[in-house]
Amino acid sequence: MPESLGLVTPFVESFEEPLSLERGGVLPRYDLTVETYGSLNDTRTNAVLVCHALSGDHHAAGFHEGATKPGWWNDYIGPGKAIDTDLFYVVSLNNIGGCSGSTGPLSINPETGVPYGPDFPEVTVNDWVHTQSRLADRLGIETFAAIVGGSLGGMQALQWAISFPQRVRACAIIAAAPRLSAQNIAFNEVARQAIMRDPQFHDGHYAMEGVVPSSGLGLARMVGHITYLSDVAMGEKFGRQLPRADRDAEGANFAVEQYLRYQGQQFSERFDANSYILMTRALDYFDPTDNESKPLADVLKVTECRFLVLSFTTDWRFSPSRSEEMVDALIQADRPVSYARLESAHGHDAFLIPDATYHRLFKAFMDRSFHDLEGAQ
Amino acid sequence: MPESLGLVTPFVESFEEPLSLERGGVLPRYDLTVETYGSLNDTRTNAVLVCHALSGDHHAAGFHEGATKPGWWNDYIGPGKAIDTDLFYVVSLNNIGGCSGSTGPLSINPETGVPYGPDFPEVTVNDWVHTQSRLADRLGIETFAAIVGGSLGGMQALQWAISFPQRVRACAIIAAAPRLSAQNIAFNEVARQAIMRDPQFHDGHYAMEGVVPSSGLGLARMVGHITYLSDVAMGEKFGRQLPRADRDAEGANFAVEQYLRYQGQQFSERFDANSYILMTRALDYFDPTDNESKPLADVLKVTECRFLVLSFTTDWRFSPSRSEEMVDALIQADRPVSYARLESAHGHDAFLIPDATYHRLFKAFMDRSFHDLEGAQ
Repeated sequence: MPESLGLVTPFVESFEEPLSLERGGVLPRYDLTVETYGSLNDTRTNAVLVCHALSGDHHAAGFHEGATKPGWWNDYIGPGKAIDTDLFYVVSLNNIGGCSGSTGPLSINPETGVPYGPDFPEVTVNDWVHTQSRLADRLGIETFAAIVGGSLGGMQALQWAISFPQRVRACAIIAAAPRLSAQNIAFNEVARQAIMRDPQFHDGHYAMEGVVPSSGLGLARMVGHITYLSDVAMGEKFGRQLPRADRDAEGANFAVEQYLRYQGQQFSERFDANSYILMTRALDYFDPTDNESKPLADVLKVTECRFLVLSFTTDWRFSPSRSEEMVDALIQADRPVSYARLESAHGHDAFLIPDATYHRLFKAFMDRSFHDLEGAQ
Repeated sequence: MPESLGLVTPFVESFEEPLSLERGGVLPRYDLTVETYGSLNDTRTNAVLVCHALSGDHHAAGFHEGATKPGWWNDYIGPGKAIDTDLFYVVSLNNIGGCSGSTGPLSINPETGVPYGPDFPEVTVNDWVHTQSRLADRLGIETFAAIVGGSLGGMQALQWAISFPQRVRACAIIAAAPRLSAQNIAFNEVARQAIMRDPQFHDGHYAMEGVVPSSGLGLARMVGHITYLSDVAMGEKFGRQLPRADRDAEGANFAVEQYLRYQGQQFSERFDANSYILMTRALDYFDPTDNESKPLADVLKVTECRFLVLSFTTDWRFSPSRSEEMVDALIQADRPVSYARLESAHGHDAFLIPDATYHRLFKAFMDRSFHDLEGAQ
């Protein structure tokens, strides 16, 4: 087994220049909470940017002091792993609008002296890519050896290849889609409505009232969680099992009911409701074709990197056919792309779960990105 | 075009004998609200029972006085239609636990003098079949020429064939499943939690407080509605269209968001929250194999009728493979079964939507049921 990175420590980079956002707002200043793993080489060419998904954060690998659970992609980032920290300098950050240390709805609005709450401006994938490029400038990274991400993280990787073609040598887009379908938006809307209809939401000003809309946020997570798992995986995990006797106080008839409630409750204790709304909206808005004003293949013609696209057979949130839309467009655009539709029972969550074939394909792509660097030197 | 039945009028049948329910409760008395279409023949052999789905009711065809919308299966019931009222005497009822006239949570509990509300006992598909058999006795129907239903209605038809093999000559099970999957239960649980977490729910005693948990019930319907439509149908209907300008006051970014909110709101004005909880639980509990204590094929060996099973390609709530489980079990049990997997873009809702192939297959099966009667006479 490859080793873990061991102890890792986040740091904060502050940006005092105002940031104009795509949907009209302005952040007068912002912080990004960042983790890096491995070392930047002398030529500053071996950096890899890891982009997080809906409820992810900067803590992608290794362990925080005292923690028993590692970062969310620890199975794929570390010495000898797919994203090999013996080769690469890995940069992972919490995006703006999030709730894990970077500037978001929980942060103090310098113009009012109180937390932004629901007044935090809407953010988009383009805005995240923009802030990530400023972070790269700050870290002295002109070009990334690779930019990688799963789900919403894959959308950021794709947007990087479009927005900054000369700053990306390789792009791995895993379990993603070129834009959401009406059904994807519909599920996000149910999640938002669950939050907004919680009387503790107070139009987003819950912090001012000293409360948290945990009931609505938990419900939102329950809906989301169903879409992350496959029908098969749920069937194998729970089937029609009865609840565990020690946790049926709330009247669950089946184990899956308890599980979902528990997942919802846990999530509502760690995530901010306004952030969840912002993140789902960023997902909804993402659309490099600008509502088909330009075919995706035309949009992708500007890209200059190699692509890896991976999908998972039982992912019904972003099914393989959604990945294949990107692959087809890349082929039409005459761009170099490798694609695999990986067998998995784990649904959308498969991109987070250890799997030998997935790891091998991902590592081969990343290792080649490193060897390409060496060839170029 | 076949004609409509025209004006139809429901009537109430009262049952004063106590009814013991499968999950332990007892109803001291109950009413069933019923509609019939066509005429019972002299030999009383041409009756067809129509069973309704989750949010359906007795009003399956024709028009109520002053109404502009016909019953929910008007496209398939009427003179010359699949369930031909020139041939058959069609019986359709609102099930107990419902909220359209039959005894349910909105009814007065004779033992307390106030509405049952959340104290209405849990009901199951077996209980419905039992009450339907009592209704058949009352109407002088010993044997049904056919029992038919879609979704939860199909489960009732299946249970009839198992519980009363000698009283069913033909059974049509459309867009159904032999029992819910963990994912099906999970979606039902999200719907129930949406209702129960609405502060206006008051543990189900909302009527006593003079309020209605319309926000939670609307949210529950939004979740349900997504599972009734296919991704394809949603895409064709809405894609990533922007909202209609005259209805975007609530901040919808996409048309599909408005549509879902509207559907949820409309539903919350017509349906009772306690009934919705009861109906989803009845769905969850349905399992003729009693948690696989007996293979489905063995359970089905007792049946004596012809079967028609229909599924729809884009139905992901109860996918074709779920129908095929029933078909395979019927074949194993050496029972006569016809099956078609119908092409449709409409998802689970397809069983309610006019379609020429669906209508032709359904009508052929029903017409043969009538001709079999004539042959037997």
